[in-house]
Amino acid sequence: MEDNNKFMFKAIELSIKSAETKGGPFGCVIVKDNKIISEGSNKVTSTNDPTAHAEIVAIREASNKLNTFNLAGCEIYTTCEPCPMCLSAIYWSHIDRIFYANTRDDAKNIDFDDSFIYSEVMKSMEERKIQMKQMLRGDALKAFKIWDEKVDKIKY
Amino acid sequence: MEDNNKFMFKAIELSIKSAETKGGPFGCVIVKDNKIISEGSNKVTSTNDPTAHAEIVAIREASNKLNTFNLAGCEIYTTCEPCPMCLSAIYWSHIDRIFYANTRDDAKNIDFDDSFIYSEVMKSMEERKIQMKQMLRGDALKAFKIWDEKVDKIKY
Repeated sequence: MEDNNKFMFKAIELSIKSAETKGGPFGCVIVKDNKIISEGSNKVTSTNDPTAHAEIVAIREASNKLNTFNLAGCEIYTTCEPCPMCLSAIYWSHIDRIFYANTRDDAKNIDFDDSFIYSEVMKSMEERKIQMKQMLRGDALKAFKIWDEKVDKIKY
Repeated sequence: MEDNNKFMFKAIELSIKSAETKGGPFGCVIVKDNKIISEGSNKVTSTNDPTAHAEIVAIREASNKLNTFNLAGCEIYTTCEPCPMCLSAIYWSHIDRIFYANTRDDAKNIDFDDSFIYSEVMKSMEERKIQMKQMLRGDALKAFKIWDEKVDKIKY
């Protein structure tokens, strides 16, 4: 069996186990140098954490294990196209490549909001369902100025 | 001082403290019934967690404190327009309203990727910088079928 099939089958195994027990039907593994370094499945309801999607769980575990916030050199195998939260987390973590199985429309068909949230993220603020109001920008810029002028900052 | 000014000034205080110490220049508070229930500042480099943006930190703490994955009835005050990861997390958590100060362009001006990631999320898969490859959808749909047919599932 090809390695990338093997990795996705592991993610699928995690998704099935999650669906059969206490989580959403999603699983994920992160691979570096052809070895699985972390696994994740959906833990939103079991841990009361709305951010605990399979990919976020796996990214946090991989970062913790490798002792770095930068996962360049890693690939992620996820049983569903990442939602915009997880896709963005993958960008922030600098993972190299994404393998996925089900699509956002497959997720929509079983009542998940992935497709809806993609459409909201793409809208202008004024058109979004959740109201967004700007305030106190002048005061908030102070922290940005401190950061900008900081000589020993750790970029991420 | 109006309450919402007070809440944003608290978030700004957190952002300045973070910039002056070990984090990115971002802060956030979550408010319910006119009281702050959680605070967050950027912990990406200090905890080696690429998902530890101020909003994610605050959402996880609020959910933990309220013992629920659903933050309906809450408002979030964040010192910068949420990146797509955090905006999507806000949608998943069902927070009612967003107050923000700096914009994604302000963040871009001090070299943060928020604006770049927004543009990537909006692209088709084929156009994105991180390659996405679909595989084994037929096998992965099994977990979705289990979920769909599950009678005692906890929706989120």
